Amino acid sequence: MTTHDTVRVGVLGLGEMGSALATALVDAGHRTTVWNRSADRVPPLVQRGATAATTVREAVLAADLVVVCLFDAASVHEVLDPVADQLAGRTLVNVTTTSPEQAAEIGAWAAAHGAAHLDGGIMAVPAMIGHQGATVLCSGSASAFAEYRPLLDLWGESTYFGDDPGLASLYDLALLAGMYVMFAGFLHGAAMVAGAGVSAKEFAGRAAPWLSATTFAFEGLGSIVDGGDYTVGRQQSLEFSDLGHILAASSARGISTEVVAVVQNLIQRQVDAGHGREGFARIVESIKHPVG
Amino acid sequence: MTTHDTVRVGVLGLGEMGSALATALVDAGHRTTVWNRSADRVPPLVQRGATAATTVREAVLAADLVVVCLFDAASVHEVLDPVADQLAGRTLVNVTTTSPEQAAEIGAWAAAHGAAHLDGGIMAVPAMIGHQGATVLCSGSASAFAEYRPLLDLWGESTYFGDDPGLASLYDLALLAGMYVMFAGFLHGAAMVAGAGVSAKEFAGRAAPWLSATTFAFEGLGSIVDGGDYTVGRQQSLEFSDLGHILAASSARGISTEVVAVVQNLIQRQVDAGHGREGFARIVESIKHPVG
Repeated sequence: MTTHDTVRVGVLGLGEMGSALATALVDAGHRTTVWNRSADRVPPLVQRGATAATTVREAVLAADLVVVCLFDAASVHEVLDPVADQLAGRTLVNVTTTSPEQAAEIGAWAAAHGAAHLDGGIMAVPAMIGHQGATVLCSGSASAFAEYRPLLDLWGESTYFGDDPGLASLYDLALLAGMYVMFAGFLHGAAMVAGAGVSAKEFAGRAAPWLSATTFAFEGLGSIVDGGDYTVGRQQSLEFSDLGHILAASSARGISTEVVAVVQNLIQRQVDAGHGREGFARIVESIKHPVG
Repeated sequence: MTTHDTVRVGVLGLGEMGSALATALVDAGHRTTVWNRSADRVPPLVQRGATAATTVREAVLAADLVVVCLFDAASVHEVLDPVADQLAGRTLVNVTTTSPEQAAEIGAWAAAHGAAHLDGGIMAVPAMIGHQGATVLCSGSASAFAEYRPLLDLWGESTYFGDDPGLASLYDLALLAGMYVMFAGFLHGAAMVAGAGVSAKEFAGRAAPWLSATTFAFEGLGSIVDGGDYTVGRQQSLEFSDLGHILAASSARGISTEVVAVVQNLIQRQVDAGHGREGFARIVESIKHPVG
């Protein structure tokens, strides 16, 4: 396809994300057929220009490209297994959150039924779809990616990682891990200052630019991790990265220390192993080599 | 002082951060006297225009404003106690990392010796001093802040939180908590994708913009926390925020799950208490009310 070709697309699953994806397709002029288990999500899309399918089969038959955005891997099979005989010659893009192993299994299953398959990890909340900052991580069929890339780019900037269908999911989960852990760190900080009468929203106004600015350190940390030498350059040492004050201040305010203690433990294991004067990036060794 | 007044400043402690602070003062034309326990850090600053003091007393006597950037609260007392009789009428700015309680103690000690006192938390790595993004969090004497603000702004954008000397430190520690936890989350993600041949630097190139972009969610999370109603609006539910896939994918790759498991535990405690359909921000309740 080119950017201006109209594609016959079916979207299965109209949760917040599925609805946002379908909306972007409809708005770009693609012939979009939508299906959802409960019908209440359908009318807003029909009003916008989509066609409603009352069965999965109807949606699949009306589409060259079938987009699946469901709850989990089990629901993907629940919905698609009954129409497996109709998948040959079509392309399946599964953006349902799954494990890398499940993504690979679904890819093999699709191939066995003659469908091209792409697994997609959408790095955005539904409100971000089609806007700056949203990205779509893909792996699986290279030719399917090449063909439908202009359409994927409607949702967010798309990237292809390779033909292992599990790669996009792995990358997706790794980025989500970073996000959820960061959210927990932010909320821990908010809980720390709450006792001093600082609102969480006020704290957010400082924490957001601060954490955003400090992501600049990732590249340096990454290079050190890749090089495997935690003594080069002017790294902040593990000893200097003692989180004792943060833990004590948290305890003194009666809040849980667990979110910070887990990082202190990563540091401490490296210090205990004699690496205290090496750089902070070395905590990745604690992660790569779990205890016990 | 106005922006153009020259201040007689003493800087005690020339580690990476102390040196950066002194450099900014010298470069702005302030009459800066520097002291460090070991003399090797002094010559580069003298070359730049600073005056070397061979004793703490000498540095204090040459200054109206005494900046202290040492290792910890104990070293602040070790260095200042012998010159306590010289502090009356001077202003002490302590940017040494301490607990809020230690900052308050140092503030009371300074007041007892007739010195005005400000506690400062510098939110920047040394290389950021004087550049965009660096901020200086202050609390303690309001009049000292008013007088020396133009000078503090040379290091980074300064903010005054109130007369409790411990406030800046608490805020500082809360922001640092967020940063260290975020770094751990990033390195966990890097460890997840390492097995698939993705370098940590490549991962950093995606994780930095992703995490930077998702800090936009802090304000919404903060508002919900302040409101205390985790059912309003279109919050992502705790049930939907299940981190099972991330944990399983981490285990399958032989890496530690601890960094992510701590967040999953915060979620699980709220789900177990019957709040699964409420929003993710509710994990702050797990932090505010520790188990056992």
